[in-house]
Amino acid sequence: MSDTKTVAALSGMIRPLIEPRLPEWVEPRWFMTAEEAQQVASEAEIGWFDMNDKQAMIDTAKAATNLKWMNSIYAGLDFMPLDLLAERGVTVTNGVGINALTIAEYTVMLMLAHAKGYREVVRAMDRKEWLTDSPGKRELAGERVLLLGLGAIGSLVKTRLEAFDMSVMPVRRSGEGDSLKPTEWRGRLGDFDWIVLAVPSTPETVGMIGAAELAAMRPNAVIVNIARGDVIDQGALVDALKEDRIEAALLDVTDPEPLPADHPLWDLHNAQVTMHLSGRAQTKMFQRSADRFLENLERYRTGEPLSPQMDLALGY
Amino acid sequence: MSDTKTVAALSGMIRPLIEPRLPEWVEPRWFMTAEEAQQVASEAEIGWFDMNDKQAMIDTAKAATNLKWMNSIYAGLDFMPLDLLAERGVTVTNGVGINALTIAEYTVMLMLAHAKGYREVVRAMDRKEWLTDSPGKRELAGERVLLLGLGAIGSLVKTRLEAFDMSVMPVRRSGEGDSLKPTEWRGRLGDFDWIVLAVPSTPETVGMIGAAELAAMRPNAVIVNIARGDVIDQGALVDALKEDRIEAALLDVTDPEPLPADHPLWDLHNAQVTMHLSGRAQTKMFQRSADRFLENLERYRTGEPLSPQMDLALGY
Repeated sequence: MSDTKTVAALSGMIRPLIEPRLPEWVEPRWFMTAEEAQQVASEAEIGWFDMNDKQAMIDTAKAATNLKWMNSIYAGLDFMPLDLLAERGVTVTNGVGINALTIAEYTVMLMLAHAKGYREVVRAMDRKEWLTDSPGKRELAGERVLLLGLGAIGSLVKTRLEAFDMSVMPVRRSGEGDSLKPTEWRGRLGDFDWIVLAVPSTPETVGMIGAAELAAMRPNAVIVNIARGDVIDQGALVDALKEDRIEAALLDVTDPEPLPADHPLWDLHNAQVTMHLSGRAQTKMFQRSADRFLENLERYRTGEPLSPQMDLALGY
Repeated sequence: MSDTKTVAALSGMIRPLIEPRLPEWVEPRWFMTAEEAQQVASEAEIGWFDMNDKQAMIDTAKAATNLKWMNSIYAGLDFMPLDLLAERGVTVTNGVGINALTIAEYTVMLMLAHAKGYREVVRAMDRKEWLTDSPGKRELAGERVLLLGLGAIGSLVKTRLEAFDMSVMPVRRSGEGDSLKPTEWRGRLGDFDWIVLAVPSTPETVGMIGAAELAAMRPNAVIVNIARGDVIDQGALVDALKEDRIEAALLDVTDPEPLPADHPLWDLHNAQVTMHLSGRAQTKMFQRSADRFLENLERYRTGEPLSPQMDLALGY
């Protein structure tokens, strides 16, 4: 290794977790503001540009003309100038999987809470009323799940649901193993009690659940969306729920977010809106992201492939 | 087999599920009222005396002087004259395990709902308020569970929690396998993040969690009681919760039930009372009980042991 250090432009947000463990060969340039970020970005070979302001992140990425590797805690980086980064040959590691465990736990909670009518139980608790029968009487055991998306989150959801004796059918691009192909699942929608959406946000997945898909579902079907709001045609969903054509929709994500207070989804007895909290129900995200970045620094030094690398053309 | 049929006094409650599948050698005497029950009980060799009135069940059992086998859908039959049944040499099959699956699902739901602060999310939904952070930030993954009771329910809870990457330490009478003995768990209470009570109701388990046990728990400890209310010294629990000495108590069962509206448990932010609904969150209980009774009829005919048989001395 030469005496020249590698310049890394790093967000002050993650400084406490990174600085004590940063290897010698990295010269960190910490930034606190959008202006500082753009200044240090131009010299940096490595960049971690996460800020609470998406536009500032975009501007910083644009200014980083010497960048070879960009890291982020975010899983969804479709707002970033991915074409430009691809053109410059930048390797991008994102936060995919950082929240996967948390989101998988949240998914199972939503399904159980719906099955047992727990929302009604909470309301009864608040009234100090002793209910004499359960407002929900579904068991997960024996029910069938269509799982759209078998990435980091989907895989963890699958093992957890299988422990409840559910049968889980994933949809995979390859159709490998016991799974359905992207061309097959629509024809099988009527076979499933639960439809779990864990797909990445891409042009292909936008609106993938529309009026036709909703019409093909069973009356007891429950949609669980932990992907992105725009994966579902929300107008068509509201219509289906209003007419009780499916049993329920458990929506961690909506379109738009936040959902306006006058949106019809809030008023539907068979919709739950959990405010994109699924990934936030944890305290370990920054720690996990820092750990992963430091592991990737070592890989970067030795020339090994970084992980997880985004496919900038696919956008995830 | 002789031409003489075996008389069975059977509750009208289960007639629709049993009658079409009853074998030839059984002569059913269906009853609808407590009076009818006592009349037919005295001639019966087999009895299924379940009624909505416990006193009527007791009186019927007393009247059943020729009984050899009593079946029930209930798991907890400690209200019945077990000494008398033992003296008469009656075999008792109870409903233990009939609701186990449902209760196990409910248990995991309660734990997840607490971990993620889902009760607050429900309240926010009802206000149509978009929360920007999760009210609960615990992950089940990596946490340690002390599981008191490894019967039908406990075993199902264990496999489900292990799928969430929790480490589950059961307490077993025998101390077999990777488990603690009844003499060991008190000294280890400080090692666990969750304490799940799934023990049967017996003189030994009444008050097994008292002030001393609560004092030995970690500040982040969560007690989950799906056994009986009297397993916990409820006064000591209220004190511990009021002073936030443990994190929470998730109580499907209380003492008494129903819990009066002015009971302090309702007002504690860190207590949840779910009204003994855990076993009711299902529709298959009668079907499962009927299936089991019919299987036991065949065992009875061939002289095989019935299952699950109550130990009338132990009371479960």
